[in-house]
Amino acid sequence: MAMEEQKFFTIRWDEDSVLILDQRRLPEEVVYQRFNEPEDVILAIKDMVIRGAPAIGIAGAYGMALASLKLKEESRPQFDLKLREYGELFRNARPTAVNLSWAVDRILSLLKDRTKDVATLKVEILKEAENIFKEDIEQNKTIGELGAELLPQEGGILTHCNAGALATAGYGTALGVIRKAITQGKKLHIFVDETRPYLQGARLTAWELTMDRIPVTVIADNMAGFLMKQGKIKAVIIGADRIAANGDTANKIGSYSLSILAHYHNIPFYVAAPSSTFDLNIEHGNKIPIEERDKAELIFFNQKRVVPEGVEVYNPAFDVVPNELITAIITEKGVIYPPYTKNIRTIL
Amino acid sequence: MAMEEQKFFTIRWDEDSVLILDQRRLPEEVVYQRFNEPEDVILAIKDMVIRGAPAIGIAGAYGMALASLKLKEESRPQFDLKLREYGELFRNARPTAVNLSWAVDRILSLLKDRTKDVATLKVEILKEAENIFKEDIEQNKTIGELGAELLPQEGGILTHCNAGALATAGYGTALGVIRKAITQGKKLHIFVDETRPYLQGARLTAWELTMDRIPVTVIADNMAGFLMKQGKIKAVIIGADRIAANGDTANKIGSYSLSILAHYHNIPFYVAAPSSTFDLNIEHGNKIPIEERDKAELIFFNQKRVVPEGVEVYNPAFDVVPNELITAIITEKGVIYPPYTKNIRTIL
Repeated sequence: MAMEEQKFFTIRWDEDSVLILDQRRLPEEVVYQRFNEPEDVILAIKDMVIRGAPAIGIAGAYGMALASLKLKEESRPQFDLKLREYGELFRNARPTAVNLSWAVDRILSLLKDRTKDVATLKVEILKEAENIFKEDIEQNKTIGELGAELLPQEGGILTHCNAGALATAGYGTALGVIRKAITQGKKLHIFVDETRPYLQGARLTAWELTMDRIPVTVIADNMAGFLMKQGKIKAVIIGADRIAANGDTANKIGSYSLSILAHYHNIPFYVAAPSSTFDLNIEHGNKIPIEERDKAELIFFNQKRVVPEGVEVYNPAFDVVPNELITAIITEKGVIYPPYTKNIRTIL
Repeated sequence: MAMEEQKFFTIRWDEDSVLILDQRRLPEEVVYQRFNEPEDVILAIKDMVIRGAPAIGIAGAYGMALASLKLKEESRPQFDLKLREYGELFRNARPTAVNLSWAVDRILSLLKDRTKDVATLKVEILKEAENIFKEDIEQNKTIGELGAELLPQEGGILTHCNAGALATAGYGTALGVIRKAITQGKKLHIFVDETRPYLQGARLTAWELTMDRIPVTVIADNMAGFLMKQGKIKAVIIGADRIAANGDTANKIGSYSLSILAHYHNIPFYVAAPSSTFDLNIEHGNKIPIEERDKAELIFFNQKRVVPEGVEVYNPAFDVVPNELITAIITEKGVIYPPYTKNIRTIL
């Protein structure tokens, strides 16, 4: 099984522009879009051309690099001002995942040294964006190694949405753990919720696992409990968009329900995420901003109206898994167990 | 609010044929199909032109009436044999809802009197089918009255799939309770899971409630837990496809998960169903046959492939809510509370 061999890439810097795999068109078409303007990268993040907390962090970093290269301002104060403005635009492209803010902050922290000229900074900013990209893959591999230990020798593993190579620079967080466990010889069968309304599970997770010949079964979101009752699920593993200081974890809508179902069936529930996903400024999950997305995502399906006219629709994109329902959080710095508030501070 | 005024009908006997509203085309088109052949009614049940446990019971009864009218056999033994063969075909059209078997049994019980000639029987069979239809509406209204007492004065009520006029002869079971509560002046807002893969909630429940100007919000199935956490749901009410002697209730896939979520949030969980939905021959829910439907329901959406080729799909149409997670079962004979095994026998 040649799983390390990459059959696609999610995002890549290429000749002073950014190439991004258009995830809206998967699994039907594998199309890469080239971005030369930071504004277009912001739109691509908003429109979910690219999605997944670590991946949009990287898109933000590359977008900031595009912005810096593009800026004509020669004086540092002017350059800094303009770049900070771009920083705000990227930060606000999507509200829930903290990785976007985190990546922008990392780029902007280079501005602290006021002695450097603009030309030097531009080189350093691009280098920092490349570092963020490279570190993400490395971190995913470490997460994979640490997490694979926690998975059983065989059986069904349930995941939700896409926390794979498509949600990161490559390899994936939750799917990285699964990839690693399978290369270790564990006999796992992956069940994936289709993840309405955007179908990241059906369209993206099933696609990338199949490319690696990992056995995968798609279910509707409402089938997870029934699978657990049948004993088909040995563990649940998801990614994260933002983790509060107490371990409360914002992730794709439906994660909260899954954590309750896993708890009811005594099934371990794991979160896999790099340390950049933690927001220690946020005490607990109730304070994490939850993005509401366009109601059309639920009302229409492939241009066909499925919700009658005049009917209200609610479309929150995320919810929050409370720390008490999480068995462990797998980071590149170590596996964190309860009590989370204390152990998160210690390990990070 | 003129909720008693009927703006559509689900099924109706009309000039020696059966008219059925084609629910596959809702909410876009309101189209009635006319059926003259029992075989076509069987196909309509299998293909979900009509669905919902009580409604397919009625379709089965009318289908048996069509069969009896059509039979050329003049001798009772031959007539009985042929009609029983049709009975088996109807019984097996869909496996989980017991109402289909129940309706067939009611029609076939007329054969017990061996003294009647075929012509008389044909008249009686049609009359019995009409009785089943009329009783269903009456029972729904009684269920509505008994159940409305249990709903709060105001707040959000969550329902799943469609247990409305479209799932019955009219008025509905779970939606009958909601209709009655609203005519009593209760200020309810109905949340409905879209109910993948067939979208009965988004397409059917939202449609019929909107026709009655009952405020309704559609959510994806995976959002129910998040709504409960926010305190938006005061009660959950669903219909049933088959209720075992101990109260375990088979209903649309996802009902089991909802019952666990309601339990976790201390939200009452009600089942509304006529006595014809009980199967006292089945001790507990594990013995209820669970229909698996065509995988294409999940793989394709409006002819667009959303699950990549080569990926497995699992598509159970029902699951079972265990009796311990049910607050009460509302029937036309009374509201049944735990302990169910005892109280079901007493009340039915």
